[in-house]
Amino acid sequence: MRRFDPEVVRRLVRQIAEAAGVLAVDAQVLADSLVDADLHGASTHGVSRLNIYVRRIQEGVIDPRAKLRVEHIKPAVLRADARSGLGQVQAMKVLHRLYPLARELGAASATIRNSQHFGALAYYCNQAAARDMVLLATTNAEPAMPPHGGSEAFFGTNPVAASFPTGKGYPIRIDLATSLVARGNIIAAAKKGESIPPGWAIDAAGEPTTDAAAALAGAVLPMAGHKGYALALMVETLSGVLSGAAIGRSVGSMYKDMDRKQNVGHFFCLLDIAAHMEVSRFKERIDAMIDEIKRSRRRPGVEEILVPGELEHRTAIRNRREGIPIDEPTLGELETLCGEYGVSGLAG
Amino acid sequence: MRRFDPEVVRRLVRQIAEAAGVLAVDAQVLADSLVDADLHGASTHGVSRLNIYVRRIQEGVIDPRAKLRVEHIKPAVLRADARSGLGQVQAMKVLHRLYPLARELGAASATIRNSQHFGALAYYCNQAAARDMVLLATTNAEPAMPPHGGSEAFFGTNPVAASFPTGKGYPIRIDLATSLVARGNIIAAAKKGESIPPGWAIDAAGEPTTDAAAALAGAVLPMAGHKGYALALMVETLSGVLSGAAIGRSVGSMYKDMDRKQNVGHFFCLLDIAAHMEVSRFKERIDAMIDEIKRSRRRPGVEEILVPGELEHRTAIRNRREGIPIDEPTLGELETLCGEYGVSGLAG
Repeated sequence: MRRFDPEVVRRLVRQIAEAAGVLAVDAQVLADSLVDADLHGASTHGVSRLNIYVRRIQEGVIDPRAKLRVEHIKPAVLRADARSGLGQVQAMKVLHRLYPLARELGAASATIRNSQHFGALAYYCNQAAARDMVLLATTNAEPAMPPHGGSEAFFGTNPVAASFPTGKGYPIRIDLATSLVARGNIIAAAKKGESIPPGWAIDAAGEPTTDAAAALAGAVLPMAGHKGYALALMVETLSGVLSGAAIGRSVGSMYKDMDRKQNVGHFFCLLDIAAHMEVSRFKERIDAMIDEIKRSRRRPGVEEILVPGELEHRTAIRNRREGIPIDEPTLGELETLCGEYGVSGLAG
Repeated sequence: MRRFDPEVVRRLVRQIAEAAGVLAVDAQVLADSLVDADLHGASTHGVSRLNIYVRRIQEGVIDPRAKLRVEHIKPAVLRADARSGLGQVQAMKVLHRLYPLARELGAASATIRNSQHFGALAYYCNQAAARDMVLLATTNAEPAMPPHGGSEAFFGTNPVAASFPTGKGYPIRIDLATSLVARGNIIAAAKKGESIPPGWAIDAAGEPTTDAAAALAGAVLPMAGHKGYALALMVETLSGVLSGAAIGRSVGSMYKDMDRKQNVGHFFCLLDIAAHMEVSRFKERIDAMIDEIKRSRRRPGVEEILVPGELEHRTAIRNRREGIPIDEPTLGELETLCGEYGVSGLAG
């Protein structure tokens, strides 16, 4: 793993994306969203994903110049068809159309169908928070998790996210998969030949397993049993059923199904804080809450109580100063892409 | 525990509420919401709560005739002040004002401050589902749960809920506390003098406990560790911070603080399905998803995969036929209330 100037990485991603057929303005969005994830320590949703997006463009299952189609029949609702464009690009277009609606009406929602993996939800939520708005966001995803009692993957890890502006210099940033752990943790354990804790996953026969390799042939489990299942189902219904996107097992796999589109669905609900109370008062109230939470009596061995987003904020400060860390496999992929498209790499 | 005709119980609750000063039309709402919870097997949010509501009316910390105040400044947002009225009554008034907004605009949201414990969220969500709408609902609640790493209660059990209409004869019904278990389960155990399973809660000293009474003096733990904490914080911000209600430790305890109002806050976001797609198509899609989930390969020993709401639906069918079960402590409370107000009891 090596560290790189975020601006240099952003430019590189932009150049590769443009070379792969993405419009300059859209390549900028993609680069910004990926580097933002790396900056905040979410490298699983950062530039490590660029290679698969480009490969899917090359295979024709992502259309790098897809025109977004938006129906706006009811004042507070947008129904968007991403038409197999890049998830980040199409979702940001939708969000930009949602802002004025929420400003005018106080609240507005959007569904997006025919989309793709679109990175970390927090990226969108944080942009809304920077405008003193609250974006509640969900997305379905490729099958990874069974229903409670089931032994084969149906739901994706189906995350739920929202960010809230504060006066602290960073937003409260909630962005969580409804699975107990990300599949990436199991892949990592398998690579190292380590076992995984009980409760993370089941094997192909549906039996609980601590064998990482067996878990990879099975499925990850919902967090908190039936509660995580219920939340995943809520996310699937809002993002998949209501949007008109693929549902459950019908969602394409980003890595395995190179011959078909994913048809992921997203759901956004945007609230304008000013429609509820003075923004300054909201920030005083949320700051007071943060202060009180952080002053809570701690359990033995706990040095500090953090609020969601605080750690990511500290990571971003460090990464802006020291550079974003990129692992060797990702660096290898980037070098290959640079070679293919005649773009000078991170070293050059 | 004995079973009673739901209509008889509904009438009894109505009569007691009216005798305690609640308007007839509002007593009807309260009775309906409590009996609905008992019908669906959520006895922790059923008539077992009537006694404390009445006691709080008697103490002057619930105003049984409070006029709801609603500000409607932005088209899609209602800001309501429950003015310490009964939570169920004021929330239903807000929901009825939200329906036409969501029909017209496609989506609308509401916050409610100065409210109380208002029963099961599913009650409101199911009513929206019956109108082919989706209500996302959250509420904060009296301190019961520490932040991740903390040892004293800050958040309530802060539930998240949504119901979705189906063609199956019952809605998908998601209504879950962000604590590992709902506090109602511990209250119920304490009433019955039963112990609770290890892992549910800590006592006032921060130690794990199986004593329900000790747990009520201590704190319940978030589901899934930091994830439950993050969700509870999301709920607190939407329901408490954004509404102008009390936040965290400032929320009054329904049972312990008989000398002050609770000032609970609620958040509603209402989506009209017809603004997103044909309702018939939505139901076809959600029914197909339900069918596929239920057909999933099962884990060893699992007889059936259920979707959220299915079990509650079956329980309601049984309870409509056989009567709703009411435990002895609650029956004792009801008899006392009947005696106080000269209302003939369930036996009479």
